[in-house]
Amino acid sequence: MYFYKEDLINIIVPDKPDPAAAKVLQEALGGRFGEMRTMMQFSFQSANFRGKEKQYRDLIRGIFLEEISHVELVQTTINQLLNGSGEPGVGSAGIDDAPLDEAIKHANPHHFIMGAQASLPVDAAGNPWMGNYVYSHGNLVADLLDNLVLESTGVLQKTRIYEMSSNKTFRETLAFLIVRDNAHQNAFAKALETLGVDWGKILPIPNYDINKYPECQKYIDMGFHNAFFNFRLDEHRAGEIFKGVTPSRNNGELRVTDPPTPYPVPDLPEMPNEHSPGLKDLNN
Amino acid sequence: MYFYKEDLINIIVPDKPDPAAAKVLQEALGGRFGEMRTMMQFSFQSANFRGKEKQYRDLIRGIFLEEISHVELVQTTINQLLNGSGEPGVGSAGIDDAPLDEAIKHANPHHFIMGAQASLPVDAAGNPWMGNYVYSHGNLVADLLDNLVLESTGVLQKTRIYEMSSNKTFRETLAFLIVRDNAHQNAFAKALETLGVDWGKILPIPNYDINKYPECQKYIDMGFHNAFFNFRLDEHRAGEIFKGVTPSRNNGELRVTDPPTPYPVPDLPEMPNEHSPGLKDLNN
Amino acid sequence: MYFYKEDLINIIVPDKPDPAAAKVLQEALGGRFGEMRTMMQFSFQSANFRGKEKQYRDLIRGIFLEEISHVELVQTTINQLLNGSGEPGVGSAGIDDAPLDEAIKHANPHHFIMGAQASLPVDAAGNPWMGNYVYSHGNLVADLLDNLVLESTGVLQKTRIYEMSSNKTFRETLAFLIVRDNAHQNAFAKALETLGVDWGKILPIPNYDINKYPECQKYIDMGFHNAFFNFRLDEHRAGEIFKGVTPSRNNGELRVTDPPTPYPVPDLPEMPNEHSPGLKDLNN
Amino acid sequence: MYFYKEDLINIIVPDKPDPAAAKVLQEALGGRFGEMRTMMQFSFQSANFRGKEKQYRDLIRGIFLEEISHVELVQTTINQLLNGSGEPGVGSAGIDDAPLDEAIKHANPHHFIMGAQASLPVDAAGNPWMGNYVYSHGNLVADLLDNLVLESTGVLQKTRIYEMSSNKTFRETLAFLIVRDNAHQNAFAKALETLGVDWGKILPIPNYDINKYPECQKYIDMGFHNAFFNFRLDEHRAGEIFKGVTPSRNNGELRVTDPPTPYPVPDLPEMPNEHSPGLKDLNN
Amino acid sequence: MYFYKEDLINIIVPDKPDPAAAKVLQEALGGRFGEMRTMMQFSFQSANFRGKEKQYRDLIRGIFLEEISHVELVQTTINQLLNGSGEPGVGSAGIDDAPLDEAIKHANPHHFIMGAQASLPVDAAGNPWMGNYVYSHGNLVADLLDNLVLESTGVLQKTRIYEMSSNKTFRETLAFLIVRDNAHQNAFAKALETLGVDWGKILPIPNYDINKYPECQKYIDMGFHNAFFNFRLDEHRAGEIFKGVTPSRNNGELRVTDPPTPYPVPDLPEMPNEHSPGLKDLNN
Amino acid sequence: MYFYKEDLINIIVPDKPDPAAAKVLQEALGGRFGEMRTMMQFSFQSANFRGKEKQYRDLIRGIFLEEISHVELVQTTINQLLNGSGEPGVGSAGIDDAPLDEAIKHANPHHFIMGAQASLPVDAAGNPWMGNYVYSHGNLVADLLDNLVLESTGVLQKTRIYEMSSNKTFRETLAFLIVRDNAHQNAFAKALETLGVDWGKILPIPNYDINKYPECQKYIDMGFHNAFFNFRLDEHRAGEIFKGVTPSRNNGELRVTDPPTPYPVPDLPEMPNEHSPGLKDLNN
Repeated sequence: MYFYKEDLINIIVPDKPDPAAAKVLQEALGGRFGEMRTMMQFSFQSANFRGKEKQYRDLIRGIFLEEISHVELVQTTINQLLNGSGEPGVGSAGIDDAPLDEAIKHANPHHFIMGAQASLPVDAAGNPWMGNYVYSHGNLVADLLDNLVLESTGVLQKTRIYEMSSNKTFRETLAFLIVRDNAHQNAFAKALETLGVDWGKILPIPNYDINKYPECQKYIDMGFHNAFFNFRLDEHRAGEIFKGVTPSRNNGELRVTDPPTPYPVPDLPEMPNEHSPGLKDLNN
Repeated sequence: MYFYKEDLINIIVPDKPDPAAAKVLQEALGGRFGEMRTMMQFSFQSANFRGKEKQYRDLIRGIFLEEISHVELVQTTINQLLNGSGEPGVGSAGIDDAPLDEAIKHANPHHFIMGAQASLPVDAAGNPWMGNYVYSHGNLVADLLDNLVLESTGVLQKTRIYEMSSNKTFRETLAFLIVRDNAHQNAFAKALETLGVDWGKILPIPNYDINKYPECQKYIDMGFHNAFFNFRLDEHRAGEIFKGVTPSRNNGELRVTDPPTPYPVPDLPEMPNEHSPGLKDLNN
Repeated sequence: MYFYKEDLINIIVPDKPDPAAAKVLQEALGGRFGEMRTMMQFSFQSANFRGKEKQYRDLIRGIFLEEISHVELVQTTINQLLNGSGEPGVGSAGIDDAPLDEAIKHANPHHFIMGAQASLPVDAAGNPWMGNYVYSHGNLVADLLDNLVLESTGVLQKTRIYEMSSNKTFRETLAFLIVRDNAHQNAFAKALETLGVDWGKILPIPNYDINKYPECQKYIDMGFHNAFFNFRLDEHRAGEIFKGVTPSRNNGELRVTDPPTPYPVPDLPEMPNEHSPGLKDLNN
Repeated sequence: MYFYKEDLINIIVPDKPDPAAAKVLQEALGGRFGEMRTMMQFSFQSANFRGKEKQYRDLIRGIFLEEISHVELVQTTINQLLNGSGEPGVGSAGIDDAPLDEAIKHANPHHFIMGAQASLPVDAAGNPWMGNYVYSHGNLVADLLDNLVLESTGVLQKTRIYEMSSNKTFRETLAFLIVRDNAHQNAFAKALETLGVDWGKILPIPNYDINKYPECQKYIDMGFHNAFFNFRLDEHRAGEIFKGVTPSRNNGELRVTDPPTPYPVPDLPEMPNEHSPGLKDLNN
Repeated sequence: MYFYKEDLINIIVPDKPDPAAAKVLQEALGGRFGEMRTMMQFSFQSANFRGKEKQYRDLIRGIFLEEISHVELVQTTINQLLNGSGEPGVGSAGIDDAPLDEAIKHANPHHFIMGAQASLPVDAAGNPWMGNYVYSHGNLVADLLDNLVLESTGVLQKTRIYEMSSNKTFRETLAFLIVRDNAHQNAFAKALETLGVDWGKILPIPNYDINKYPECQKYIDMGFHNAFFNFRLDEHRAGEIFKGVTPSRNNGELRVTDPPTPYPVPDLPEMPNEHSPGLKDLNN
Repeated sequence: MYFYKEDLINIIVPDKPDPAAAKVLQEALGGRFGEMRTMMQFSFQSANFRGKEKQYRDLIRGIFLEEISHVELVQTTINQLLNGSGEPGVGSAGIDDAPLDEAIKHANPHHFIMGAQASLPVDAAGNPWMGNYVYSHGNLVADLLDNLVLESTGVLQKTRIYEMSSNKTFRETLAFLIVRDNAHQNAFAKALETLGVDWGKILPIPNYDINKYPECQKYIDMGFHNAFFNFRLDEHRAGEIFKGVTPSRNNGELRVTDPPTPYPVPDLPEMPNEHSPGLKDLNN
């Protein structure tokens, strides 16, 4: 069973609205290699796990648990990027005229139609998330390799999305996720190491230069790239795998740790123009 | 942030393999009105919530938390129904010949191809789950009404699926979910009651006769149709709504309670013929 | 604007339930070449029509009007095939046990889950209808050729579906539609004839032998293969094209006529076991 | 059977081309809550209706009939918004060079590729319409509640789309549809009232302020929000439900009326550059 | 079996980056009427061909072979249009800041996320290619007519896409494909001529004016509109059909010829910022 | 450019019709891990390849070339399995009555509707192939790892499909493809070995026991699991990688070889009942 404490897994850094950034950040939420995919893929792989070597199942499930928080983090970041992007006065045609006419120009129009300037289960091109993104092969080696590709592509795509806006809200979340995807890459690579693979120097994939993504540095300094955050309320065996020298080239030491310092979930303001939440209307 | 204790939210009653039942039960997992839909819909609605009346957000989020456990329960039930359905000897053509030839006749062949006889993010017709099933309207009344339709249809479809097999594993899970969907229906109906609606006698939808679904009775006796299981580790406000007389016709009293008695997650046996998990092979 | 009189465009011949037939007949409703496709394709082509040669637009729109009735005819036929297929006693396991367990074996399970034994906007393989089936090219020659392919494939597929059951309800509707698709094929072929094409002896496509589909004969005798049913309440110009010798090999004469003799819409019985419509429950 | 008179259900107000507005207006045609959805959902619900209480079926079917006209109205509005948007001279690079290079910048490129600047069965993000948008639950209460959500969301989304352009062609159609969705919301809410629900003050959803959408006022003045337009050529029973005091807060009186004053379907000019319709070419 | 020589079927004319052009050119690759569709449609039709009249199968297969080269040509053209579009300095916010922020404004963001500025199996609106675009009817007349529509629409759409940018890389590839689609249209029209159809003056569809697409002229001068490029290494019978007077209005003579003069495949530069190919990183 | 010789890459072993086997074999053609996926994935990866280390691109492209032949092999195998499955007399209801009524019971009905008993671009559950199956990451390590997962899953799924029928046509094609997927797995694993990975003993994935799939033995004896079939008509550099000791546990030697002995493409008989090809009808 699953439990919750109202905390975000990372900070939402304030900056100005940026609906174009919100559009492309959807890839990290509802894209083929986004957080909904990792969440659901690890959910299915852990529920479908066969056999007695449960240290592997506990590793996969542990990352599943963190991905639920990642989904919430990206949802919240997108909402923050959208907040205020369609306010009266932002529109080119004047206050009373068409407050969203500019906002939608480089945006996903569904952000302003389906909800009240809010996140969606879609990717950067507006395609809905699909169940066929999820692979649960049943064979452990195939599952681990697939997960390694998934987490590698997570880093790869996020470093590319990072180049699309210098908005601070946007980049802080991406930086945190890049470092955590690196950690999860280490987890699956290490699991394959226990089965006999020697990765040489190919990890992490891609071999990103930390200097290009300066927001990442503090997370590296805190050791987040080598940490397995423990969200279990009972005993588990993931630590039998996630320990010892990292399979990545930095020679760090892998360790199971407590979850990171929590951050508050920001309040989203009402949007009467979008009839959200619309309760005030009911009191007339 | 989300936490986990390795417990199932309900029992898995043992019975013989039934791949045809596994196929149709997929609707309750990956169908348009299945548990993945409720889980993701309430995830988006709670993350996208606007305004200060957070008792409604906490109500939605609380049900989201339970739905994560429902997803795991249905995954596990499907796996149990599939276990052993393709063993040598089950096939019509003899032990060594084509062990799956009978199993796939009324089954979803993907259960035997994509994974090693395991659950999938698809519906009863084999269509992948899609992000466009999720509605997060931004307007609270619209969201609550939509959720009421969703939970009502959950009951409706599960009572129909119930007629498709008398397998005990299958029916026990359906019965539990019928009663819990009823409870969630009560939650959203009650929330609309706080905004002024009087439901008369139309609830629950459908007005199911408990005698037709005898496995439901014990859950009714335990009050599960009127309970809001609390999976929060901190304070929340859902109880401001989920209290008092039920909006359903049975005059019960709604109450926030602890989660139900947990049940162990069954072990899934290895399936060497399906190369799952395949670790033994590596030791040759 | 569109008007309605509660009449079916053809008879529903009674026969016993046949859920396997209902499953494959879905192709004629929600398939890539089914009636929803023709209805929507001609709707878009007539609304998007450019220029002054409106005899072509009126031809396309006139067929659109008939297709709305075809959609209703196939929906009703599928419902008739499903009615009673899941009654208690039909199940292999006995009256009280699992009334749908046999019904779903060769059926689309969604017929018994999504609705109460009722038609769906899907094809014979259970895939949902998609907007990308609709082609409205803007160029008249391309549109007419595409429509000719569409109506030809309509006949082709229906003659193949015809072989899948000898149920009378099923075959009567197919026979009527085969003959009407032939008429619509004539309409688009004739329109291309006015632009200079001489079809030689290739029409109709396929060159079906009426003796293989005996239910077709009476419709041929009534001249339905050469008739353009007029559903317009005002003047129009389709008759400028649909006249003279047919482009098909039978040398018949094309003519605009009144709609065919109407048939009553059958009543669908209540299905309390499926909670449909469920009103009786509300009076308790 | 279905009949047609070449009339539009509302006026097309002329204004200049606006391909960005055409793109977002597609939501009202091919979106999850657009007119194609309402048309097909009510088509399936009325054809699949079970039981003898046909006043409910006639109510649903009556709205289906109007939705066919709505589809045509939105198709026509989109075409009007696209007309001339890609003419030589509009392009930034000069008359002979690339007449569409500017037009496509904030547009759906398919408007200029699939057809000759014409409407499509897609939504505002370019996703094709899908059959899985249609819900026909079989249970009357579930169907009515679902329809209420559908019509509410219709209003909600259209008020949001309204903010995206001040183009008069665009806004007039949206205003008409907002008021009619309100009327249809009243219809389904009233039907639920006959089954015992008291809506209190939550209707309409959202509780939109008429002053924000000034084009709506004249439709309100004509009583379109309380009217059920009768497109039946025979007797029917919808008026047994649609009568008496509205369930919305304005205390108006519901009434079945004749269809509104018809408007002419505008002629769409030829587009030789897009080879549409292309007949002139054939006379060379 | 299939063989390859590293040659492009046409030249890639250099010009500056144009990501907006790359986005719309995707229609010619992954659109409903693009080269992936023609390639796969003719692959299925030739493999599924029934009967002894193999001259028709060899005609279809011969065009399939050319389409594989077309796919490579469009992939390469898109890559050329993307190359350098996201380099540092192109961004509005300065060299170090967000090099892709401008590039994505009118682009498909997936071009910069999924791969390293590279082609994708999607259309101009970003929708993934789907197997349901492929029609293989089994009936030869239906297949030939469908192919004629397909190739006609190929020309039609490419002349419209041509208007969207004056980029030379973009237009040269479009011009070549327009002329080859014309040749393939001739092939299928001629095949239908052998079965008795006289096309009059309706071909080619659309009746495009060569003067509007000046890059086409040289391909016409080389006779590419009347040529069947022979990619077979053995004997075949396509020439039994593709011979004699063209069915198009220009009175040319159809002939089977050798493949055109080959062009080199351009080298794609490394993109370290996109971690592509990323080998250099591994040598640190 | 691509060339063709009318040869199949492997034998089609005759056996009786088996439409249920045809249905599940579709997974190997149009499934997420089927031959269409490998063909298109390697097509995109080789066209999108960046940088000068072209030995990797030539390796990927070489496998792409073979996959085109695999697509044709599986199409042909499915056609062989379908041939004759719906002949008059096979039906349960007698010769003249409904020749397909039995055939469709465990089949994909689209095999008998869309074409004339012919292969389709769909998977074993009837879902159409989608472009989003194709991954072309741009980063070479990510691409190679993804390809390794893809080829491993190819083996894994084919060994599972193998259990679904003992039909010889079916099993021979599967056995050939299992061994070739193993060879391609070796190719990508070896490429990663050149970048520093040591696979230990985890390859091949899954570690299949040759004795369970006896048809594989002769292909192993011919060394097909260690061969790179060379379909290039010019020089290339794939052999710089595909050489030396295999990364799999059998210690074999990798080598570039000529293509295998070709086999004739079987003739598909006419099917007059399905109007295929339908030419005979035209001579009446």
